[in-house]
Amino acid sequence: MAKETMKTRAAVAWGPGQPLKMEELDLEMPKAGEVLVRIVATGVCHTDAFTLSGDDPEGIFPAVLGHEGGGIVERVGEGVTSVAVGDHVIPLYTAECGECKFCKSGKTNLCSAVRETQGKGLMPDGTSRFSKDGEPIYHYMGCSTFSEYTVLPEVSLANISKEAPLEKVCLLGCGVTTGMGAVTNTADVQPGDTVAVFGLGGIGLSAIIGAKMAKAGRIIAIDINEDKFEMAQQLGATDVVNPKKFDKPIQEVIVEMTDGGVDYSFECVGNVHLMRSALECCHKGWGESIIIGVAGAGQEIATRPFQLVTGRVWKGSAFGGVKGRSQLPDYVQRYMDGEFELDCFITHTMALEDINDAFDLMHAGKSIRTVIHFDK
Amino acid sequence: MAKETMKTRAAVAWGPGQPLKMEELDLEMPKAGEVLVRIVATGVCHTDAFTLSGDDPEGIFPAVLGHEGGGIVERVGEGVTSVAVGDHVIPLYTAECGECKFCKSGKTNLCSAVRETQGKGLMPDGTSRFSKDGEPIYHYMGCSTFSEYTVLPEVSLANISKEAPLEKVCLLGCGVTTGMGAVTNTADVQPGDTVAVFGLGGIGLSAIIGAKMAKAGRIIAIDINEDKFEMAQQLGATDVVNPKKFDKPIQEVIVEMTDGGVDYSFECVGNVHLMRSALECCHKGWGESIIIGVAGAGQEIATRPFQLVTGRVWKGSAFGGVKGRSQLPDYVQRYMDGEFELDCFITHTMALEDINDAFDLMHAGKSIRTVIHFDK
Repeated sequence: MAKETMKTRAAVAWGPGQPLKMEELDLEMPKAGEVLVRIVATGVCHTDAFTLSGDDPEGIFPAVLGHEGGGIVERVGEGVTSVAVGDHVIPLYTAECGECKFCKSGKTNLCSAVRETQGKGLMPDGTSRFSKDGEPIYHYMGCSTFSEYTVLPEVSLANISKEAPLEKVCLLGCGVTTGMGAVTNTADVQPGDTVAVFGLGGIGLSAIIGAKMAKAGRIIAIDINEDKFEMAQQLGATDVVNPKKFDKPIQEVIVEMTDGGVDYSFECVGNVHLMRSALECCHKGWGESIIIGVAGAGQEIATRPFQLVTGRVWKGSAFGGVKGRSQLPDYVQRYMDGEFELDCFITHTMALEDINDAFDLMHAGKSIRTVIHFDK
Repeated sequence: MAKETMKTRAAVAWGPGQPLKMEELDLEMPKAGEVLVRIVATGVCHTDAFTLSGDDPEGIFPAVLGHEGGGIVERVGEGVTSVAVGDHVIPLYTAECGECKFCKSGKTNLCSAVRETQGKGLMPDGTSRFSKDGEPIYHYMGCSTFSEYTVLPEVSLANISKEAPLEKVCLLGCGVTTGMGAVTNTADVQPGDTVAVFGLGGIGLSAIIGAKMAKAGRIIAIDINEDKFEMAQQLGATDVVNPKKFDKPIQEVIVEMTDGGVDYSFECVGNVHLMRSALECCHKGWGESIIIGVAGAGQEIATRPFQLVTGRVWKGSAFGGVKGRSQLPDYVQRYMDGEFELDCFITHTMALEDINDAFDLMHAGKSIRTVIHFDK
């Protein structure tokens, strides 16, 4: 039986360190349990850049990158029941099947349903839906949003309000949820608590929003790029600190500022030395540090065990601990209700054809998020 | 005004690496807020041995070691209200003042009231009550139970039932509470959970008791000394594992045994490599590892941050997270009610004069606990 395919415009990562290249790809129609989505908008995230750079040991090429998108269901495969044609969806790199040991535990959002094949750039049946001249092009993080059309497993789609602007709420597909969720889900910040946020990129700023929503009493924003302080303060940071201005470790600075340390800290960079600082600036007896940033391959965190024996807690968070299908629609609704804003993150918008400019802006530290509009 | 003093028999640590020496010391009477206690029995703990060895960078000599005792109040200083002459008490190396930031937080047992002077081997007024020929002999961990009489701050005494046998419940002054409390206080082991205990000394065995009390479904006891397995199994271990019997890291062995890892692990040795194994044998998504053992000076723990980002939690516990004055009397009562036993820990008893034999037995791995009886 011949495969039913369609054409799609996509920005393809042919190899590490190479610019993305616009291509017309063949896209196979969704199989059972799969969904064809037309991407309306997608953010360009540091993780895309990390993989594109070649530093990601799990990076696979050629691939269609992108994992922070919003789109509309165009067609559903056999047996798909949770979304229908016309539904608005956010692709999830952290699926939620509701059936696996992880989902059933109720303790984590790390669903195992499609993990193995997703890590290999493949759909659950072990093949790719994308191809060029008959050669497979790999999926990425189960999403591949740098393509006008993409195919995803049903379990990897959050069905959201049709009222929500996809070109904004696409950011809830990764960065903003990751930061906000780490504060409100993984940590349990209470009104009046003191919070430190290390790194003021999109995730750090989202963590500040989360801390503000949780009514933290003091929010200390830390970055070596002071250009980011204004935005951090607009979003709710009460203190801004540049570690380069001190001749002692930043953890000591924070401990002194806070009479013993913070209740919660968040590492939003992916720097293992900063992860240590974030832990060690926590208050003895109860301070918790949450690692959000993704470190380079093989890098390790370290500290003296005394830091933990005296009551600090070291944990981490992926996608903010948020269960995509059951909880992300509520995040979208809260955005619609005005609980937080997303515009502040979107420093640039552009067409898919210009996507390499988005990476350039990111590397130059000039953007928080560039959002690709597919209708541009 | 001349100091009022009494004589006391004590085993004095004159210097690192030297055997203890029996001495008759001068002991100054309790000042305001202090209490004179006659020690009836005391355990000999690895921490005493650690300090005596000279490896403890905070060790101070000469000193009266010992911190796992039980005794009777002989005299109280001005203003003391929570204990009276004749009360039975357990000395606390983790005080509980109820007034400091830590006590008031309700989140930790790490009271700061006497910490600074205690760490210097002194009473809160900055002096020692012990002396020999007019030269001060230092206190140790605020307890100094290797002396027939000792003086402690009121905030460092748990007032326990007079019915409790001091020569048994003295073990609740350190090791047993540390292990049990880490399981039932610091961790929140639920019925059916899988638990791994690394190291089967007194603390590890106590952790097994705690896991059994918490109705853990599976209790995996890990040690390289298989002589300890029988006791571990008697106390409730369902599996015993000798890491030397495998040619792969013990964390991999445990992960395979448990279909993904344990819910909780406890490091009861003080070995930083084992601390890593204990973390990495935890189940992705929710497993928590609690460090109980005390590592050598300057040693560090390390892991890949991915271990935490994927949901494992690294924490620690001191004195089992137990608040000594408000919670330890209840532990004593639970022992009296038969909820757990202490006899199994007491492999040897002897007189204070023989205390160096207790250290020899410990170093030879032949004892769990030696209890010194002062009336022997």
